[in-house]
Amino acid sequence: MRCPLEKRYDIAIIGTGPAGISAAINARIRNKSIIIFGSKSLTDKLTKAPRIDNYLGFYNVSGSKLKENFQKHIDSMGIQICEEKVKAVYALGDYFSILANDNMYEASTVILSTGIEFTKSLKGELEYLGRGVGYCATCDAPLYKGKKVIIVGYNEEAEEEANFVSEIAQQLYYLPMKGLRGKLRGNIEVIEDIPLEIMGGDKVKSLKLKNREVEADGIFILKDSMPPSQLVPGLEIVEGHILVSKAMATNIEGCFAAGDCTGRPYQYMKAAGEGQVAALSAVSYLDKK
Amino acid sequence: MRCPLEKRYDIAIIGTGPAGISAAINARIRNKSIIIFGSKSLTDKLTKAPRIDNYLGFYNVSGSKLKENFQKHIDSMGIQICEEKVKAVYALGDYFSILANDNMYEASTVILSTGIEFTKSLKGELEYLGRGVGYCATCDAPLYKGKKVIIVGYNEEAEEEANFVSEIAQQLYYLPMKGLRGKLRGNIEVIEDIPLEIMGGDKVKSLKLKNREVEADGIFILKDSMPPSQLVPGLEIVEGHILVSKAMATNIEGCFAAGDCTGRPYQYMKAAGEGQVAALSAVSYLDKK
Repeated sequence: MRCPLEKRYDIAIIGTGPAGISAAINARIRNKSIIIFGSKSLTDKLTKAPRIDNYLGFYNVSGSKLKENFQKHIDSMGIQICEEKVKAVYALGDYFSILANDNMYEASTVILSTGIEFTKSLKGELEYLGRGVGYCATCDAPLYKGKKVIIVGYNEEAEEEANFVSEIAQQLYYLPMKGLRGKLRGNIEVIEDIPLEIMGGDKVKSLKLKNREVEADGIFILKDSMPPSQLVPGLEIVEGHILVSKAMATNIEGCFAAGDCTGRPYQYMKAAGEGQVAALSAVSYLDKK
Repeated sequence: MRCPLEKRYDIAIIGTGPAGISAAINARIRNKSIIIFGSKSLTDKLTKAPRIDNYLGFYNVSGSKLKENFQKHIDSMGIQICEEKVKAVYALGDYFSILANDNMYEASTVILSTGIEFTKSLKGELEYLGRGVGYCATCDAPLYKGKKVIIVGYNEEAEEEANFVSEIAQQLYYLPMKGLRGKLRGNIEVIEDIPLEIMGGDKVKSLKLKNREVEADGIFILKDSMPPSQLVPGLEIVEGHILVSKAMATNIEGCFAAGDCTGRPYQYMKAAGEGQVAALSAVSYLDKK
């Protein structure tokens, strides 16, 4: 089971918040083939907003009502969302290769609308990134064959990833940050504790928890959204946000970005406007090629 | 008869397209005092659009239907539009002084959302600007006491301005570019012809028309919207658009811009998003003061 596969999409959009779906409708109107990765429920943040007054055209609406209108809009245009999780985007010169779940997709351009990650980084997380700390267990597991690995699991898929890694690693510890879903294999040691700091020298040596310290060669932190810099190797980030031009172009040719991931203010209208600009810039880039 | 006068508004918004009214609703939500100059019918461009599909939340709406929703939004928030025509904005260090019709208003910050002027400049117009060519007849008329003046009238108020100048100038010629409205005084000479080029040496000497050439010391070109560079002396323009940062700040402290006047694409959603960002930037500027 995978999303419809075109030989190569014109535009791949990553994220289904207001920026992503605004990009999708604009790209579709301009007759480009698109694939949009995200959640069919669009965005949880929107659904939870009790009242929105500052999205021009809708006064005093609930987030779920506004979402309904967004949903109706994309449904009317036949835009379908691919619910696979994007794990990596590789810029391959003329096109992009996108790893989602275990499938590869190709697109001539990419629009990043991944939102902003509110999960605070652990102390030491960014410092040891690539030196023992990783965000994609299934990608990097082979590096830890016969070694000790810790998985800090924030998202739904974390337990399945842990199972996969447990086949390769010598010892696997699992920290359930949002409770256990009961899918873990018996050879995995569950630790109910609070992670405080990643320790090490040149490389990771251990994870300091509130009540103990656990030695490890590798630590995977599995969150719902990966930082864009991890998603797209080589992407330029400034103060935690993707660096974009006024046309919403990133430093990578053919790669655009829109919405919260490009910076404040974190607002629906701003995000939707940027999604439009990113889509039209991608269209103009495609037309020039 | 003038618009409500506060001692000094927090934010003055110039223009009532999607950028201007989006700025207005965001500024009002943040409890700032605002004055917004423009037309009570918001924007003619919007009303004329037969079908809009790319404003997220509204699929397959007419421009007039979308405008209705915008109108309802600002009405619900009690936002009133001041229908005076802004002729100049002066940056006075700590605040701005705004000349609208013949009234002066003060504001701590300004948001320019003047749209884009599609009237092509005359040959020589920009070259002789300030050297015999002007956009505000009532402002500069005293310079032409006892002299010859031509008024090229594109907008509704042009005939009234011509009447005023005719009291001061020795000879006044009037070129009706959009027909005559029958308000001109008898001492004004109407010329039905097509202006081609403004001629001169150091200063304006004459206006070359399709069928004749008319000598003049001053030429006023009266359009509905003035170029922002004329509206706000010192404003930095790049390739016909106001130069803005990502926060929609112009080169003048406290002066922000949003919408078509900041550059392509000329789209409602992009304009509304920028209006929001400009307003929030103005709010943050005010809060820091």
